[in-house]
Amino acid sequence: MMIVADNLQIVTPVVAEAVSRLDPEPIRQLVLRCQQAGAQAIDINSGPLPKTPEKYFSFLVETVQSSTSLPLLLDTTNPDALEAGLRVCRQPAVINGFSLEPVKLERILTLAAEYDADIIGYLLGPGSQVPIEEDDMMALAVELFEAFCGTGMRPERLIIDPIITPLRWDNGLRHNQAVLNVIRTLPDLLGAPIRTIAGISNLASGPVPVTRKIELESAFLPMLAAAGLDMALLNVLHQPTVHTAGLCDALLGDKVFAFKF
Amino acid sequence: MMIVADNLQIVTPVVAEAVSRLDPEPIRQLVLRCQQAGAQAIDINSGPLPKTPEKYFSFLVETVQSSTSLPLLLDTTNPDALEAGLRVCRQPAVINGFSLEPVKLERILTLAAEYDADIIGYLLGPGSQVPIEEDDMMALAVELFEAFCGTGMRPERLIIDPIITPLRWDNGLRHNQAVLNVIRTLPDLLGAPIRTIAGISNLASGPVPVTRKIELESAFLPMLAAAGLDMALLNVLHQPTVHTAGLCDALLGDKVFAFKF
Repeated sequence: MMIVADNLQIVTPVVAEAVSRLDPEPIRQLVLRCQQAGAQAIDINSGPLPKTPEKYFSFLVETVQSSTSLPLLLDTTNPDALEAGLRVCRQPAVINGFSLEPVKLERILTLAAEYDADIIGYLLGPGSQVPIEEDDMMALAVELFEAFCGTGMRPERLIIDPIITPLRWDNGLRHNQAVLNVIRTLPDLLGAPIRTIAGISNLASGPVPVTRKIELESAFLPMLAAAGLDMALLNVLHQPTVHTAGLCDALLGDKVFAFKF
Repeated sequence: MMIVADNLQIVTPVVAEAVSRLDPEPIRQLVLRCQQAGAQAIDINSGPLPKTPEKYFSFLVETVQSSTSLPLLLDTTNPDALEAGLRVCRQPAVINGFSLEPVKLERILTLAAEYDADIIGYLLGPGSQVPIEEDDMMALAVELFEAFCGTGMRPERLIIDPIITPLRWDNGLRHNQAVLNVIRTLPDLLGAPIRTIAGISNLASGPVPVTRKIELESAFLPMLAAAGLDMALLNVLHQPTVHTAGLCDALLGDKVFAFKF
């Protein structure tokens, strides 16, 4: 399971300020902290970037790739920003991401094909609605996969995100239980070696004490891992959650098991 | 998921001494500690009891049931001890347990039918060998289920234990990964509402630091829970493991999710 840091977000004041001043240093420090904490990839979540998106997103990509050689997830809903980021990105890039929303299919998915990049597809309806039931998620996955295949890209490039929802939401619990089944059965259903990703921080988002967030993440992550999750997007500064991810790899891997004393 | 304490074991010196002196007090104290720690049932593991097994096992059952009203698991390989225990047991009893070993089929399984008790069946070969592969476990489960059905008991009375093995063992890791699939698919395979139990303490048994035991248990337990495990036999004094079991119930249940602040 690859650990992807979700810590680099424009909604974080220190990041917002660094971006507005085009100051690389705070971002560099954050990226280094994430790498030291166990990140194996960095998600660059810039938000929509309404003003001069190309300038700000390329600044972010340049800054991160000058700080680390880890793979990058380019996480913006703005196709202009995304294209600018892809243009300057010299490291393995994952586009995060597209859905069945028409503008995403037209402007985001096509960029994946053009730049031959991995791309994440969200199990969301065309109006961005979140399905509750497993069957509806599966139907969306089939549609998403068909749209993806229409670009001619190899299935290995597709990473499905079934969207973990906050437990506080109506049906959040039931939805997340269905997510476990979707992750387990999706590659077989599609008959293709697609991967899966899940945003663990969503589980207990909002005003929840950090110890409670961490214990919920640490209990749900092994369930996702056993279901076959390939990439876990999480707050890597939640050290117990990252530690649990390592234990999951050990318990589900094929290496000789060694106890560390 | 029902939490069963595995703390009452004759191999523990304080228990061994209390039994040899027929002194109920240390056992009563241990049972109360287990109940306070979250035990929902108590496993009474007496070992084979070579001398006057009836006397010692009835003493154990009487002592435990005078200390708690929790269900009891009668955990002895000695059929005479077991029968004496069943005779005095006034609380819901689970026989722990039988396997395809001929003496177990003849002397233990028959007692379940006679006393109309729940019984645990181990996925072990007739010579007590532990299978590594999922297919072999499934084949044993089918044989065990057929032997069980031969007694005329209802399937609800059968609890299958696929035997978690120590991670240190050759193939321990692979075996335990197969156990996850077995727990998930067994009720469907047998087409019957059988339950499953797993001994979590086996995972990191032996000279492993307690913090390491607890973190491995806490990572593996959610995988077992998501697979559908009904009963977890564990050291209830490992509080983080018990806490994780509670989180699993919340994450996999159908209650409205409430954060405790």
